[in-house]
Amino acid sequence: MQIAFIGLGNMGGPMAINLHKAGHSVRAFDLSQPACDKVAEAGVAVAATAHAAVQGAEVVVTMLPASQHVEGLFLGAGQLLAQLPKGTLVIDSSTIAAATSSKVAEAAQAQGVDFIDAPVSGGTGGAIAGTLTFMVGAEAAALERARPLLEKMGSNIFHAGSVGAGQTAKICNNMLLGILMAGTSEAIALGVANGLDPKVLSEIMRRSSGGNWALEKYNPFPGVQENVPSSKGYAGGFGTDLMLKDLGLAQENAMAVKAATPLGGLARNLYASHSLAGHGALDFSSIIASVQKKG
Amino acid sequence: MQIAFIGLGNMGGPMAINLHKAGHSVRAFDLSQPACDKVAEAGVAVAATAHAAVQGAEVVVTMLPASQHVEGLFLGAGQLLAQLPKGTLVIDSSTIAAATSSKVAEAAQAQGVDFIDAPVSGGTGGAIAGTLTFMVGAEAAALERARPLLEKMGSNIFHAGSVGAGQTAKICNNMLLGILMAGTSEAIALGVANGLDPKVLSEIMRRSSGGNWALEKYNPFPGVQENVPSSKGYAGGFGTDLMLKDLGLAQENAMAVKAATPLGGLARNLYASHSLAGHGALDFSSIIASVQKKG
Amino acid sequence: MQIAFIGLGNMGGPMAINLHKAGHSVRAFDLSQPACDKVAEAGVAVAATAHAAVQGAEVVVTMLPASQHVEGLFLGAGQLLAQLPKGTLVIDSSTIAAATSSKVAEAAQAQGVDFIDAPVSGGTGGAIAGTLTFMVGAEAAALERARPLLEKMGSNIFHAGSVGAGQTAKICNNMLLGILMAGTSEAIALGVANGLDPKVLSEIMRRSSGGNWALEKYNPFPGVQENVPSSKGYAGGFGTDLMLKDLGLAQENAMAVKAATPLGGLARNLYASHSLAGHGALDFSSIIASVQKKG
Amino acid sequence: MQIAFIGLGNMGGPMAINLHKAGHSVRAFDLSQPACDKVAEAGVAVAATAHAAVQGAEVVVTMLPASQHVEGLFLGAGQLLAQLPKGTLVIDSSTIAAATSSKVAEAAQAQGVDFIDAPVSGGTGGAIAGTLTFMVGAEAAALERARPLLEKMGSNIFHAGSVGAGQTAKICNNMLLGILMAGTSEAIALGVANGLDPKVLSEIMRRSSGGNWALEKYNPFPGVQENVPSSKGYAGGFGTDLMLKDLGLAQENAMAVKAATPLGGLARNLYASHSLAGHGALDFSSIIASVQKKG
Repeated sequence: MQIAFIGLGNMGGPMAINLHKAGHSVRAFDLSQPACDKVAEAGVAVAATAHAAVQGAEVVVTMLPASQHVEGLFLGAGQLLAQLPKGTLVIDSSTIAAATSSKVAEAAQAQGVDFIDAPVSGGTGGAIAGTLTFMVGAEAAALERARPLLEKMGSNIFHAGSVGAGQTAKICNNMLLGILMAGTSEAIALGVANGLDPKVLSEIMRRSSGGNWALEKYNPFPGVQENVPSSKGYAGGFGTDLMLKDLGLAQENAMAVKAATPLGGLARNLYASHSLAGHGALDFSSIIASVQKKG
Repeated sequence: MQIAFIGLGNMGGPMAINLHKAGHSVRAFDLSQPACDKVAEAGVAVAATAHAAVQGAEVVVTMLPASQHVEGLFLGAGQLLAQLPKGTLVIDSSTIAAATSSKVAEAAQAQGVDFIDAPVSGGTGGAIAGTLTFMVGAEAAALERARPLLEKMGSNIFHAGSVGAGQTAKICNNMLLGILMAGTSEAIALGVANGLDPKVLSEIMRRSSGGNWALEKYNPFPGVQENVPSSKGYAGGFGTDLMLKDLGLAQENAMAVKAATPLGGLARNLYASHSLAGHGALDFSSIIASVQKKG
Repeated sequence: MQIAFIGLGNMGGPMAINLHKAGHSVRAFDLSQPACDKVAEAGVAVAATAHAAVQGAEVVVTMLPASQHVEGLFLGAGQLLAQLPKGTLVIDSSTIAAATSSKVAEAAQAQGVDFIDAPVSGGTGGAIAGTLTFMVGAEAAALERARPLLEKMGSNIFHAGSVGAGQTAKICNNMLLGILMAGTSEAIALGVANGLDPKVLSEIMRRSSGGNWALEKYNPFPGVQENVPSSKGYAGGFGTDLMLKDLGLAQENAMAVKAATPLGGLARNLYASHSLAGHGALDFSSIIASVQKKG
Repeated sequence: MQIAFIGLGNMGGPMAINLHKAGHSVRAFDLSQPACDKVAEAGVAVAATAHAAVQGAEVVVTMLPASQHVEGLFLGAGQLLAQLPKGTLVIDSSTIAAATSSKVAEAAQAQGVDFIDAPVSGGTGGAIAGTLTFMVGAEAAALERARPLLEKMGSNIFHAGSVGAGQTAKICNNMLLGILMAGTSEAIALGVANGLDPKVLSEIMRRSSGGNWALEKYNPFPGVQENVPSSKGYAGGFGTDLMLKDLGLAQENAMAVKAATPLGGLARNLYASHSLAGHGALDFSSIIASVQKKG
């Protein structure tokens, strides 16, 4: 099957390569030449423009930074949607506002194009290993069309609901992740300030009612777990500024539907302060620094 | 072994009964006659006063509501500590301020009495079933003395550190629990406000990076899980006012050690508002009502 | 001078009437017939459409509910901007996103039209009395053109900066207002819970370092001041849902510029909870109910 | 009149000197020799111990750092209360827990001693100038006895209610101050991030519904006002750690009476983070740094 892949960053690049490795004919594009070079080295064909990439493609996969890029590509200056033949399937794996997904999907439908939102979690490690989690907003039939491709890039595929629901599920999950990482940081820092051993306390909470993904897989206190960002100077992983973006999407959504999310709103602002303090590029588990004594 | 058990409420009563069932000679006491009657029905010997209960006891177990009761019993009006012979082991399973534990322990040590803090989690269900989790603050030797008894009442025994560390671990865990229950409530309510199915969203987050104990065992949204308080009108379980107490202990501790816990502090105040709105007796997962549209 | 006035709600209606009373030839329009009838009764000429209203007008004043209405009217379906002759002055008194103001202003400039943002504070009382405060974002020359008209509707005219700055000043002020009303409510409720007299405490804080506009003019505790919403069952005044909207604009802006506003974010979510609890139509000082014991 | 003055720090020292200057016979004491030397230079008689200071005194004024010092002096190791003859008036100007004030007052009453709480605001400047604000918790008769002395040290004397009410009024006020300083900081920082001039924005808000004491007298943005800590590198003024202490007293009190103070709780934790980041000794208006871009 002929696939166009647009957006070849830290996530999109490895995803495109995995589709190529699985035997699909992938034509890829990114505005950044180094990003194109990287997938080319892995054997993926690179197109000179987004328009060239989609020529003859049955499926278009996009992995872009933010709402305005997706809207711009398909409906704005890019005008890519107008180029796609009836029956094309667009899988947008960007994490963007659900409202934008719905807007582009509606325009697509008017043209006979299937647009589904399929944001991911699992980080760059999952993108490379092909073990991403997809949260999909789509009609059942469109999801079934996409499933064989998603399975080449990920190991968990959740059907969250109709178009836009993938984005909503993603931001609900990431808002909760932001809260529990910051909350876990506070709990460990409080214990340590009382003289407790962070390993012992983490293990107690992990096996008690405080148990959560951060304690399980991604402990924010240096040295408690191996091979997590906190044990490597908070390098790699999922950056503070990316978490800040997702927490912002959650607040934007909360405002649109008049929902109340006091902890989610506070988490967004704590990460914003952490970023302003100069830690935007560090892994998001470095938020623990904001509740620790300095120096 | 002769054991005195003081404090026979919803938690203490079943714990005393479990020690009795395990073959120990238990003499129990509570200021409330109905509480005494309840354990008496199960065959536990009841003493007329705390002083009478500890006569001849090698071990004294206490399960009292708050710091002032523990301090009052041992050091204040109760003056019970002065009555205990050298070598007595006191196991305090109350959830109280770590500072109070340390204060009583110090006085006990001066008299040759071993005082350890061993607060529990697991609720009344765990107390009855004998599957509580103990978080113990004690020297290793004292813990080993207590262990055979703790094993009659619980299935997990964590050694958190020296005296006071059990209390600290407990409030760190429960502060985190308060945060993740409120955070999980916000995430589900946000999804539902966007039209998502709470079951589908809960399952997605449970298996993703938002995964935590609340999603695993205690979903706050009615009907998502069976046999949890949210599916029974928020009856039973762990009351809002008990969570409020524990979150208050965490803040008290944070102030004593000059720690920062922004989410923990906010959680305490959200539960306080929820209690003021008249929901103090409902299970703490009812906090979801504070982020849902009424009526 | 010929003036078109579009948007005749609780604020816009009296503003249009004040311009008419001052001797200007006003042609007004609103989608709601009762709103049109109300200004017609006061002698203002009513046009059948927005397009008809602007015929021959030197100045267009708009007072609309939200960003999408302003953008829709001028750039979207309304296409009103295309109708305006070179040299027209548009005074937008709506409270909307600064980004929208800037976007419309840019399009206006390309057409030789002056677009300035001039959101107000002072409530319906101020609109009727002609004592509104205007926070204006404009080049100095455009502001001077507008000033004689603004003076007919308000008594304070602040020049906040260039286009968009009026909106920013407004949301900064209203975010701060939301914080200090909620904070003042907490402080009074805490004192009352300790047995203090709310009048005595309010007076002490008003004259001390806790002094602020809420204590001065708009005490949230019933009976402390006369003729404020709290003493009239929280009727009238500035509704909870309007404050919620402004706090949402502030958070939206904070996200756009990556600012951190932890108290502002929390205030937004506290008002959202208050609205979900069914109090959206009550005056915003009713937020005190969220920290008071019910019943 | 013979007066004992105990506690000669940055506040107590100047207060004792003002009593001396007013013609009273003051005998002062502090554990710190330099503090004693300072008042001695101003002509105040210094006693070798607290016990010596109170010999023959009709009135005892205390100005101590925290609850434990007041309780310790009068009831604990100090046992000073037992030394005071019937009819002595004790004026405690320390900022401590209302519960401690009530406890000491009760013990005093049992001995025929009048104990009133009279915490102050106004800072070291007000202490030196004799323009402090006193918030007094006392029966009316005791307050009238104290008034002539309070008037030598301050210019505003508020009667908050019976014993303990002075402390409650003080922490309610200072909690509100902590909130409005942090909130004002957020509002100004948000405006500046949007390109507004901090002076212009401050002036707009000061004269609008965001108006408050911080904008009036103590702007947190450097250079907006002269002679405030923000314009002098945040030196002098009211330290972050002192505000942290008062916000902690407010939370402690909120927990004791089961009050909800979400913004007050968050403010306490924001100041705690700010202190952990190394800014505990800077003036509390430096909290603005936590919402500004670093470097």
